[in-house]
Amino acid sequence: MTKTNPGNFFEDFRVGQEIRHATPRTVTTGDAALYVALTGSRFALHASDEFARSLGYAAAPLDDLLVFHVVFGKTVPDVSLNAVANLGYAACRFGVPVFAGDTLSTTSTVIGLKETSNRQTGVVHVRSVGVNQRGESVLDYIRWVLVRKRDAAAPAPAAVVPDLPAEVPVAELAIPASLDLARYDSGAAGAPHLWEDYEAGERIDHVDGMTIEESCHMTATRLYQNTAKVHFNQHAEKDGRFGRRIVYGGHVISLARALSFNGLANAFRIAAINGGRHVNPSFAGDTIYAWSEVLAKQPLPGRKDLGALRLRTVATKDRPCADFPDLGPDGKPDPDVVLDLDYHVLMPRRG
Amino acid sequence: MTKTNPGNFFEDFRVGQEIRHATPRTVTTGDAALYVALTGSRFALHASDEFARSLGYAAAPLDDLLVFHVVFGKTVPDVSLNAVANLGYAACRFGVPVFAGDTLSTTSTVIGLKETSNRQTGVVHVRSVGVNQRGESVLDYIRWVLVRKRDAAAPAPAAVVPDLPAEVPVAELAIPASLDLARYDSGAAGAPHLWEDYEAGERIDHVDGMTIEESCHMTATRLYQNTAKVHFNQHAEKDGRFGRRIVYGGHVISLARALSFNGLANAFRIAAINGGRHVNPSFAGDTIYAWSEVLAKQPLPGRKDLGALRLRTVATKDRPCADFPDLGPDGKPDPDVVLDLDYHVLMPRRG
Amino acid sequence: MTKTNPGNFFEDFRVGQEIRHATPRTVTTGDAALYVALTGSRFALHASDEFARSLGYAAAPLDDLLVFHVVFGKTVPDVSLNAVANLGYAACRFGVPVFAGDTLSTTSTVIGLKETSNRQTGVVHVRSVGVNQRGESVLDYIRWVLVRKRDAAAPAPAAVVPDLPAEVPVAELAIPASLDLARYDSGAAGAPHLWEDYEAGERIDHVDGMTIEESCHMTATRLYQNTAKVHFNQHAEKDGRFGRRIVYGGHVISLARALSFNGLANAFRIAAINGGRHVNPSFAGDTIYAWSEVLAKQPLPGRKDLGALRLRTVATKDRPCADFPDLGPDGKPDPDVVLDLDYHVLMPRRG
Repeated sequence: MTKTNPGNFFEDFRVGQEIRHATPRTVTTGDAALYVALTGSRFALHASDEFARSLGYAAAPLDDLLVFHVVFGKTVPDVSLNAVANLGYAACRFGVPVFAGDTLSTTSTVIGLKETSNRQTGVVHVRSVGVNQRGESVLDYIRWVLVRKRDAAAPAPAAVVPDLPAEVPVAELAIPASLDLARYDSGAAGAPHLWEDYEAGERIDHVDGMTIEESCHMTATRLYQNTAKVHFNQHAEKDGRFGRRIVYGGHVISLARALSFNGLANAFRIAAINGGRHVNPSFAGDTIYAWSEVLAKQPLPGRKDLGALRLRTVATKDRPCADFPDLGPDGKPDPDVVLDLDYHVLMPRRG
Repeated sequence: MTKTNPGNFFEDFRVGQEIRHATPRTVTTGDAALYVALTGSRFALHASDEFARSLGYAAAPLDDLLVFHVVFGKTVPDVSLNAVANLGYAACRFGVPVFAGDTLSTTSTVIGLKETSNRQTGVVHVRSVGVNQRGESVLDYIRWVLVRKRDAAAPAPAAVVPDLPAEVPVAELAIPASLDLARYDSGAAGAPHLWEDYEAGERIDHVDGMTIEESCHMTATRLYQNTAKVHFNQHAEKDGRFGRRIVYGGHVISLARALSFNGLANAFRIAAINGGRHVNPSFAGDTIYAWSEVLAKQPLPGRKDLGALRLRTVATKDRPCADFPDLGPDGKPDPDVVLDLDYHVLMPRRG
Repeated sequence: MTKTNPGNFFEDFRVGQEIRHATPRTVTTGDAALYVALTGSRFALHASDEFARSLGYAAAPLDDLLVFHVVFGKTVPDVSLNAVANLGYAACRFGVPVFAGDTLSTTSTVIGLKETSNRQTGVVHVRSVGVNQRGESVLDYIRWVLVRKRDAAAPAPAAVVPDLPAEVPVAELAIPASLDLARYDSGAAGAPHLWEDYEAGERIDHVDGMTIEESCHMTATRLYQNTAKVHFNQHAEKDGRFGRRIVYGGHVISLARALSFNGLANAFRIAAINGGRHVNPSFAGDTIYAWSEVLAKQPLPGRKDLGALRLRTVATKDRPCADFPDLGPDGKPDPDVVLDLDYHVLMPRRG
C-alpha cells in the first residue's frame, strides 16, 4: 500500500460522501501582505485597520479572495488531483469575515456524479464549506470538475446532477450585523462613485494590465497550499498539453479583481460568486486585462447604507479591454478571454 | 463620465491644491518580512525587536525606505500616472518611527507648476506628507515630475518654481526623544565602525551585487501599492520607449541601501534624503552594485551618543564599483550609473 | 583599512575561536507566510495555531527548516564568504520550538582546521548555536566548509579534525515537556500513517515535482539574510564556474521536505539532522523531486505517544523518483541527485 496520495478517481466518489480536507491554516498579516504583493490589490477595507474599524469591523478582514483560495486549496488533494478540467463554480457565498489569527478548515460533500459518454471520465459536483476555529462558515460553494476514471471499465453510479442556482439571492448574502457604513470614507477608498452611480448594463474598462511571471503565480498558489501539479512542475508540463505550467485560475480571478479597483473602488466586499468559468488557460508572460458589466443593481433588505451590484467581470490576456472583448461572431468566447466571473459585491449607498 | 482614474494631467493641477490620496495602509510584520525577502536588508534595528528595545524603541521600527515606498506609492495615481519622468526628490525628512500595526496615509500639496517650452508637458512640484493613525508625520518630502498635458493648447498657469533646500539641516532631523544609544551593540549590528571612524571625502565600495528579476521588482512595487503602469505591463511596454518594463526607481534605492550594509552597517537610520536622481532606468536582468561617499560628518545638537553622516550613494548596473563610477570625461554620469542619492544617516558615536 | 567585510580566509581562523554573528532577527508570521509561499509546505503543526495548541504548544511553532535557515544565514558573512564548497553538516539538533516574535541570534566556535594538500584552501569545522531571546538553544549543529587561503604561502596551524557522530542519539532529541499527542488529529494532518506503519528499509517516492525560479530561490535566501554571493549576482556568476547563479542548498532541503509531505505527512517535526550533502548544485529551471528511505525506527525513552524515524531523503533534479535514483554502477551518486539528507523526524504512535 502506497503512503502517498494518488488522489481520488471518479469511481472513488459516491453521492453523499463527506470529505474532511487536511491542513487547517491560521491566516495572518503575513498572508495579507503577500496577497497585496502578488496581486496589487488596493481595496481600503483589507488594507487598513483604521478604515475597517470605521465600518464596525474589529480590524481589517482578509481579502475575500484570499479566503477563497485558502479554503479552495485544501480541497485539491482530495477532489481535483486527477481532474482534467475545472468546469465551474456556483452558489458561492462568503460568510463571516476572516481576521488575522483565524484558523480555516474545509470540508466537502459530494453532491453530484455523472460519468461522461466516453467512460474515461466523470463529472463530480462537490459542495465545500470553509469554517473558522469557531465553526462559523467563512465560505460555502459548489464546484464541479471533470475527473479521470482509474479504470474506464469500472461501473458508473446512477447519474446525479444537482440543480444549481443561477444566482445567490441577495437576501441570503451574509452582512455582518456590526457593519455600519455611516462613516464610510470614499476619499480613503479611492473613488466618489457609490451604488447609486452605477446602472445595470453599464460597462467599465478597467484599463490597466498586469503581466504574470512564473514566480508570481507559483508563489501565490503555494501560499494557498494548492497542490495541483500543473502549476508547479515544468519538467512534467513540458510534455503536457500546453508544454508549460498553467496559471491557477484563482490567481487570474485575483488579478482581475485587483484591476477592477480602477472603476469599482467602493465595491468593498465580494459577497457571493454566482458562477465562474476559466474560459482559456493563462501562462507566464500573459498580461491580464479586465472589464466589467453591471448585471443588476439590487437594494438589500433592511439596509439603507449599502446595496448590492451583480457584476460580470471578464478578463483577457494580451488584449486591452476598451472594446469589451466578449463573444465572437460564432457565439463562442473571444480566444483572448480567460475568465468570465459573475458575482455580487457590496457597495455603500448615499443613504 | 468614466469611473476609471485617468490620472491628472498638467492642466488639472493648481498651486495650493491639496490632494488626499487613497488607500490608508496598515503596515505589518508581513510587510517587513517581504521587505527583507525582496531587498536582502540586514540592518539590525529593523530586524530585531530586542535590538530595537535596547535603543529605547518599543519594537523594531519598519525600515525607513519601506515607509517611504508605502507613502510614495499612494501618490502615484493622483500625481504621476501621466508623468513622463520623475525628475527628483528634495527636503525628505523621516518623522516618527513606524511600527507594525500603524496605519499610513498620504496627502500632497501642489507647490510648483511650470509648463515646458514645447507646451506638451509641465513640471509639477508636490510636497507630500505621510502620517500615521495619530496624524504624526512619518515622512515629509518634495518631489517633482514632468507631467503630460491633456491638451497642448491649454493655457498654462503662471510659472511657480519653489526654492528647494540643497540639504535638510541636521538640526531639523527627527530624533526620537526616547532614543538612547548607551547600549548600542555594534557586534549585533555587524561592524565596529562608528561615526568617529568615517571622514568626509571617504569613499566605500559596497562590493556585492544583486540581480533584479521581473517577479522581484513587481512584487516589491505591488507591495507598496504603486500603480505606475510601466512597472507591470509587458504587453504595453513591449511597444514602449524601452521595449520592456522599467524597475521602480525606489526598488533600486532599496537595493543600494541594502548593499550599503557592507561598509555602513551602523548607519542605523535614514533620517533625511536631501536629493535623489534616477540617472538611468533599470530593467530585469540588471545587477545592481553601489558605492558611497561621505559628503559630511556632522554632530547633532545635544547628542553625544550619535551623529549624522551625509552620504552620497551611487548605484550602477552590471558594473562593479571598485573604481567608483561617477561622471564621465564629458561631465555627464557614467552610462552604467542608475542612481545618485544624497541623504543623512544616523550613526552611533563612541561618546 | 577597508570598512567592508572581506570575509575570513582559512588563516584567519583558529581552533577555539568564538564568532558572534551579526543581525539578531525577530521571526514573525510574515516569515512563516513567506516560507509557505516559497516552499509549498503543508505540515499542519506549522500551519495551524489550533492544531499546535491541541498538542500542547502555545501557538504554531515556525517550521524547523525556517529556523535552520535563519540561524545558518547569520554565519555566512563570517564563515563561508570565501568558501569554495560546503562540505557537510553533522550533529544538528533542534532545540526549543521557535514562535513568531522570538528573536534569534547565532554564535559559532571553530572546532577544526586542516589545510588541504595543495595549500590553496583548508577545511574549517564550526559548531554553530542559534538561541532565542532567552538564550535557549533553538538549533545546534556542526558544518564544515572548504575555505580559500588569502595567501597560499601562509603557515598552516596544526591539523585538527573533530570526531563527528554518525547520528544524533534519539535519547538526546529535544522533546518539549508540554508535548502531548493524545489529541493528535491525523485527519487534519493529512494522512493515516503513523509511526507503527513505517518499517526500516521502506522507500517512498514523494511523486510531486517543484520547479525553481530565480526569483523564488533568491527571495527565500534573502529572507534568511544569507549573503553568499553565488546566489544573487548573475553579472559575476556569468563568468563563474557554472555561468549562472547557484541555488542555496538549504532551499533545496526545504523543497525536498515540503515534497515529502506526500508520504510523510505525520512527520510533524524534524528533531535532528545527522548529516547532509549537496551532491550537485541546483539552478533556476531545475525541477526538484524527492524520495525517502526509512533508515531506522526508534522508540523514544519515556514516550508512548511518539517515536522517531531516521530518514534519508534524496532529492533529484529533472528526474522523477519512482525508481529511487541513488548511486550509479560506479558507486558514485547518480548525476541527477542534488541532495542526500539523513535526519530524524518525530511521528505520533498509536499508543
